[in-house]
Amino acid sequence: MVDIATRVYNHKWKIDPIVRSLIDTDFYKLLMCQSVFRNRPDTVVRFSLINRTTKIRLAELIDEGELREQLDHVRGLSLARGESTWMRGNTFYGKRQMFRPDFMEFLENLRLPPYQLEKRDGQYELTFEGPWPEVMLWEIPALAILMELRSRAVLKELGRFELQVLYARAMTRLWEKIEALRELPDLRIADFGTRRRHSFLWQDWAVQAMIEGLGDRFTGTSNCLIAMRRDIEAIGTNAHELPMVYAALADSDAQLRQAPYEVLADWHEEHDGMLRMILPDTYGTAGFLEHAPDWLAGWTGIRIDSGDPAAGAETAIRWWQDRGEDPRRKLVIFSDGLDVEKIIELHHRFHGRVKVSFGWGTLLTNDFRGLVPGDGLAPFSLVCKAVSADGRPTVKLSDNPAKAMGPAAEVERYKRVFGVGAQAAQEVVV
Amino acid sequence: MVDIATRVYNHKWKIDPIVRSLIDTDFYKLLMCQSVFRNRPDTVVRFSLINRTTKIRLAELIDEGELREQLDHVRGLSLARGESTWMRGNTFYGKRQMFRPDFMEFLENLRLPPYQLEKRDGQYELTFEGPWPEVMLWEIPALAILMELRSRAVLKELGRFELQVLYARAMTRLWEKIEALRELPDLRIADFGTRRRHSFLWQDWAVQAMIEGLGDRFTGTSNCLIAMRRDIEAIGTNAHELPMVYAALADSDAQLRQAPYEVLADWHEEHDGMLRMILPDTYGTAGFLEHAPDWLAGWTGIRIDSGDPAAGAETAIRWWQDRGEDPRRKLVIFSDGLDVEKIIELHHRFHGRVKVSFGWGTLLTNDFRGLVPGDGLAPFSLVCKAVSADGRPTVKLSDNPAKAMGPAAEVERYKRVFGVGAQAAQEVVV
Repeated sequence: MVDIATRVYNHKWKIDPIVRSLIDTDFYKLLMCQSVFRNRPDTVVRFSLINRTTKIRLAELIDEGELREQLDHVRGLSLARGESTWMRGNTFYGKRQMFRPDFMEFLENLRLPPYQLEKRDGQYELTFEGPWPEVMLWEIPALAILMELRSRAVLKELGRFELQVLYARAMTRLWEKIEALRELPDLRIADFGTRRRHSFLWQDWAVQAMIEGLGDRFTGTSNCLIAMRRDIEAIGTNAHELPMVYAALADSDAQLRQAPYEVLADWHEEHDGMLRMILPDTYGTAGFLEHAPDWLAGWTGIRIDSGDPAAGAETAIRWWQDRGEDPRRKLVIFSDGLDVEKIIELHHRFHGRVKVSFGWGTLLTNDFRGLVPGDGLAPFSLVCKAVSADGRPTVKLSDNPAKAMGPAAEVERYKRVFGVGAQAAQEVVV
Repeated sequence: MVDIATRVYNHKWKIDPIVRSLIDTDFYKLLMCQSVFRNRPDTVVRFSLINRTTKIRLAELIDEGELREQLDHVRGLSLARGESTWMRGNTFYGKRQMFRPDFMEFLENLRLPPYQLEKRDGQYELTFEGPWPEVMLWEIPALAILMELRSRAVLKELGRFELQVLYARAMTRLWEKIEALRELPDLRIADFGTRRRHSFLWQDWAVQAMIEGLGDRFTGTSNCLIAMRRDIEAIGTNAHELPMVYAALADSDAQLRQAPYEVLADWHEEHDGMLRMILPDTYGTAGFLEHAPDWLAGWTGIRIDSGDPAAGAETAIRWWQDRGEDPRRKLVIFSDGLDVEKIIELHHRFHGRVKVSFGWGTLLTNDFRGLVPGDGLAPFSLVCKAVSADGRPTVKLSDNPAKAMGPAAEVERYKRVFGVGAQAAQEVVV
């Protein structure tokens, strides 16, 4: 029976919006936003889209009008009543009222600030400038829109059955990954794949498949909207943008050296337990841990997001041991470019030595590699980063020189200040 | 938006019927039924279900109550007005009014006769007895019901995502077969998979996939309901049951020897063109062709349904040449246990030498091999055959001794009468 009302309703959409909610974003963006809203509300930042996979010429694939429509649609969004209720009333990591009333009021009144869009050399130059707590919330929707518009551009060419079989193949592939992960009884894994997902619906399917396939071993999703709708945990802590902006604001080398710890001191004041996770690689993990204050060793764990993950975890284990901490009580979250083989390998290597957890991103929510001719749906390395703060450029080094960003002279200065020596380059897949 | 009416409507079903229409059957059953209705309306036949794959204990898998409900549902069906309109008004093989008014009237008033059902040794003994034109229409629905109830019994154990991934895998597999067939620009292939399909919905999906994937190279389906709904050709001519019953009714060896030709003489009178297809293997292809009357060589083509298909086609080509016919103007339809590799091989071997066509059955509509643990959805060899006519047992030899059926003494007699010598056994997959 045709549901005429639904059909007519669907025809009323001028566009099929990719991002339909302000909380269709990563949980840690909201956590960090609250921290920034308290500690650095007036800092003016500039976020910029960077396509590291330059051979994918986004401006030729994606229609500018469609892109503007999608971005404009996000600017029209505001926090829905039920979303606010969920944020105010929910338990996150076992705590109620994670989000303070003043922050919730700010968020309820927020509309995302304007964007600047230009085409250059086959790519889009998409930038956002304004108060840090507002601009930072563009990152995830901007990435999700670009990723999904690219998917749609490729899918437009396919027939009805080709489409069905494409998704059948992608589902089969993902389910086989889940079946492989089922072999690990003590696994803990979460979805971190919002930013580079194939599409919203696909991420939602992937999360549901993880729920059915892994049960309790699936610990939640970074996506707040999906966490709310599927009634599962929202997962996340903090990201590189905090030390990057704090560092850019430093007035001297001495201040710069302290900036990453200042971030964590602010964080320490606000959060405890599962939210006290160290992200040590912004300016090199080894130096960061070596010069870290003692109180940081008391934190819950560490997130390994660049460089050789096993080496990073071993470094952390040695550091905890040196500081008199028992690594078996510490959490290590791996979150960089994971796929099943790597997850299984890392799990076997570290399970029992530390508490192991995985934040599985792009190859959970966008593994369409090899599924269309020309590999037009393969995920690629798109990021949206803070590139300046109060007019000063930001720098990221990470544990992989292929992921470094910032002006060359500043990169050299940061390397000197943070004592970063030779680094082994790792291929950036996604 | 929930379509409440549809949901309530679906809940009203006492059962989810497997066969919802009298024309959810093979086209050739209706063609043969018309022929039988004219030539042998009073013959009393007995059809019986035979599960050649005895290790699959159907009576343990399938609930007897559910089976009875499904069979009873079929007994309640009558030809719908639109179905009658389609049969009366449609063009089959380019001809209008293929079905005569008196036959249509018979069919419009038909309800299928009673069935007898017993359990024995883990199997169902399901038999149908009565006037041939009525009983013969049980064959396809009975098989489809048993096949789908078995599928449902296995599927009952699966979770929601396991189910979705199961179908994702089956769709991917079928689509890859279709992609392989796309490489053959001159292919002609039809769906012959009603009787041993995984389910009605799956056959319908397979047909639609063939339509999109193969375009004109997909010539149609044997299933009348799907042909009607998808607006494609209904395909089929005649089957072994005609010579088997005619032969059983023969009063002497001499009459027996003539019986298969008598069938075709009756057929010749009624049909021309694409419907004049010889099915030569009921009592051995070689002997059948050797003793065939000259007018038979003028028929359109031949269907190869047992034995080594290449050998069968070569025999037919030699026969046409011996009778002064040009094989390149003749049609050879392969229809026995086909899958893609065999189709491609036969196509390459015979394309250009004859007109080649394929009737693709079980491995089109039920290739779920290896998709659940224990291979519980693999197709198996279930048939429903005329076992007696006016109280006399029927016999089938075919070109594969593994497919022979009938009382041993009668099989020997038929072998003698038809001069069938040594035969090479072929594994019966489906």
